[in-house]
Amino acid sequence: MTDQKATNVYWHDGEITKTDREALLNQEGATLWFTGLSGSGKSTVAVAVENALMARGQLCYRLDGDNVRMGINKNLGFSADDRTENIRRIGEISKLFVDTGVIVLSSFISPYSNDRDTVRSIHDESNYHFIEVFVDCSLESAESRDPKGLYKKARAGEIKNFTGIDDPYEAPAKPEIHLHSDQMSLEEEVKVILTYLEDHCILQPL
Amino acid sequence: MTDQKATNVYWHDGEITKTDREALLNQEGATLWFTGLSGSGKSTVAVAVENALMARGQLCYRLDGDNVRMGINKNLGFSADDRTENIRRIGEISKLFVDTGVIVLSSFISPYSNDRDTVRSIHDESNYHFIEVFVDCSLESAESRDPKGLYKKARAGEIKNFTGIDDPYEAPAKPEIHLHSDQMSLEEEVKVILTYLEDHCILQPL
Repeated sequence: MTDQKATNVYWHDGEITKTDREALLNQEGATLWFTGLSGSGKSTVAVAVENALMARGQLCYRLDGDNVRMGINKNLGFSADDRTENIRRIGEISKLFVDTGVIVLSSFISPYSNDRDTVRSIHDESNYHFIEVFVDCSLESAESRDPKGLYKKARAGEIKNFTGIDDPYEAPAKPEIHLHSDQMSLEEEVKVILTYLEDHCILQPL
Repeated sequence: MTDQKATNVYWHDGEITKTDREALLNQEGATLWFTGLSGSGKSTVAVAVENALMARGQLCYRLDGDNVRMGINKNLGFSADDRTENIRRIGEISKLFVDTGVIVLSSFISPYSNDRDTVRSIHDESNYHFIEVFVDCSLESAESRDPKGLYKKARAGEIKNFTGIDDPYEAPAKPEIHLHSDQMSLEEEVKVILTYLEDHCILQPL
């Protein structure tokens, strides 16, 4: 955070830019896009990164099913078209947050490469940071965790088109960050991500 | 901005809340919703408020046609349903920013009371600040300014359903802030808004 500027200046010529906001926040805006199977640990690592960033005094915000599906995307279902539109809108919202200078932690299964590539290109066209974080976990591990009991329901046929069971998960070909969540500790995962952010000047080193 | 906390603590129990982010930013999240005729000066005052807030070291973000219609809402047209969905989505996005602790400056003609009331209720249901700012200006003044030449086109019949010409503008009945942009200076308008933000503990007094 930079020192407060003059307090009696109510405006100046020209518009405030992303760079101004980033200077205020002492960071660069960026989207961390966590993708992986249900139960792979996407939200767990996103929450841990959020805690680590706040402990450093850096502003971040998590987007996930809870605050998106109940709000902006509540008029979308689970058809192929709606899933694509769901991810597109989340990508556009992430971009607005990046423009604000915020580090966005977007945590969604997002199983299709095409949809993730759309989000990437939305960022690329403005030269904004997009960091695909593949939270890689074997189906066996994810299914054995089954924190929400969804795999059990999918195996019983109560949920259709469930990623990993009767719908594909298209693994990222070249993710910026590849976490093996069934082999790494949470602390290791967080460290990899923070190091990436420092190495790319999104965060200042401590 | 609070002092940076311990640098060696990578996470703690429990999730980061809106209150944590607001403490970090030394402000409360809030939506300032600027409504009024085309040419009434909505964007002008929003830009001036943005400058004033940045000069005080406070984080804000402007939402307007430029960053919304070209991005998240580019699949919407100007039918009645699409206009309503346009405003609803902007309201939901504003809410996400408020949850982040940001002061959002949303600048849209938003001529229909029902649509604005939807945005208000989206905020009310979470007890978030929603501040309707009526940028009130006579049609004559707005039309004489006509910064984008749109009234001229509307009068010539080249634009249909233009607010104030052949489509109604429903003035807010009880806006939190009522600016008379054809009678007040820009400095006065900014001062009214900053005073409101201080009086409601969204900003700390200088």
